[in-house]
Amino acid sequence: MSFITTPDIAFLHRLADLADAQTLPRFRSALSVDAKFKEGDRFDPVTDADRIAEVEMRRLIEQVYPDHAILGEEFGRKEGGAHCWVLDPVDGTKPFICGIPVWGTLIGQTTDGIAKRGLMSQPFTEERFWADDSGAWHRRGGVVSRLRTREVPLAEAILHTTSPQGWRGAAREGFERLQEQVRMTRYGGECYAMVMVAAGQIDLAVEPSLQPYDIVALIPIIEQAGGVVTRLDGSRAEAGGSVLISANSALHEQALQLLAGAVA
Amino acid sequence: MSFITTPDIAFLHRLADLADAQTLPRFRSALSVDAKFKEGDRFDPVTDADRIAEVEMRRLIEQVYPDHAILGEEFGRKEGGAHCWVLDPVDGTKPFICGIPVWGTLIGQTTDGIAKRGLMSQPFTEERFWADDSGAWHRRGGVVSRLRTREVPLAEAILHTTSPQGWRGAAREGFERLQEQVRMTRYGGECYAMVMVAAGQIDLAVEPSLQPYDIVALIPIIEQAGGVVTRLDGSRAEAGGSVLISANSALHEQALQLLAGAVA
Repeated sequence: MSFITTPDIAFLHRLADLADAQTLPRFRSALSVDAKFKEGDRFDPVTDADRIAEVEMRRLIEQVYPDHAILGEEFGRKEGGAHCWVLDPVDGTKPFICGIPVWGTLIGQTTDGIAKRGLMSQPFTEERFWADDSGAWHRRGGVVSRLRTREVPLAEAILHTTSPQGWRGAAREGFERLQEQVRMTRYGGECYAMVMVAAGQIDLAVEPSLQPYDIVALIPIIEQAGGVVTRLDGSRAEAGGSVLISANSALHEQALQLLAGAVA
Repeated sequence: MSFITTPDIAFLHRLADLADAQTLPRFRSALSVDAKFKEGDRFDPVTDADRIAEVEMRRLIEQVYPDHAILGEEFGRKEGGAHCWVLDPVDGTKPFICGIPVWGTLIGQTTDGIAKRGLMSQPFTEERFWADDSGAWHRRGGVVSRLRTREVPLAEAILHTTSPQGWRGAAREGFERLQEQVRMTRYGGECYAMVMVAAGQIDLAVEPSLQPYDIVALIPIIEQAGGVVTRLDGSRAEAGGSVLISANSALHEQALQLLAGAVA
């Protein structure tokens, strides 16, 4: 029964296959975008792709692991045991509707609240990024390679945040302090930029306001690639909130100090 | 001799093939990034990919069209007759070094200073976007489809600019006026976001400071797809500067008025 309690990474790929079949055909097609407004003025389009992909993934999880908990972006929480599946069928709905392939399907699995396995699928570029206890991996065109963060000093680091509009007040001051110390800032990358930290292409990624399903799947990928993920108060990031991803612990400490004040 | 004076679009694809062979193998590989600082504090990394791809394209142009002028990002201007090739081997060097496939090779051709043909190649996603007198086209996986902008009111429009950091002073005020009127703003898309205007996914793309080689190739693609491209003073955009791309002329006029003050 060990397979039941510790799901194989192959099961995450099966879930991603189901999601890809729903998301990819709808990318750059006539979309029925249903604008849903959450948390003040944030615009959060929800597509059919998002909903149908989550339904399909939940159905398979419930068949194979009926006792597991599920937390999905679209259909909320199903209570369960120690294991929980954390799903975002389309992370990056904005790039999705803009036709830009930096969105991804995020599939994470926690045990006792700690992220253990994670997978991101980008079906337009035909890429998978995932991690389990064996490491963090990238697959494209049948080629699997290990993901590793890189070592650069803060002054050479590339910083990413999805939108400058999310940073306000004291949080904005902290972000700007960090921005002044790095080599350059990129915007608009969503989950794709976060896996590029694991791939050693970007060094710091910071977001002011994440949900658990925005980050859980990415935590094992970053950690197994050598990186660090925490909330801005240094605690584990499974619950979301203001989250910093760094290529290594030295960068992480420096960035957290510069961001201090960003958690008011 | 008509082939000589009016190059076939097939020739632009030949140039793009040469560039792809230099750019794609270097994407996400160990890059020798040579930081070059231009125009104040703008960071503009130049890769081997950029240089070698331009050398290869210039060599083929000089063989086939020895009398044509050439303007390239890396190696400057070669004087010539009425026809000029305008080349940016890697537009979006920042996303290139970040591992994010929103960069592209831009190949444009002007006659008497007016952009007539243009092509963008994104070899990682295996996409080509191009335009000649027959229209604007997209090709991926052997499927060629016509590019068309869409019709939405300003309040429903998606706006793109590559970085908020480029907007300062009066220009920033104009950008923010426009931003307040649209549905949402995306960042970090470079040339890829501009062809997404042609594809009917994004509605407005505005950049505060472009070089001719950043925009010439894209002008025919936008125009033939039904869109409008001008500088913020309403003049043609072949010379670069502050440039607005819109899905249609009604949006363009509204956006230009909101941006007014952006050309101080």
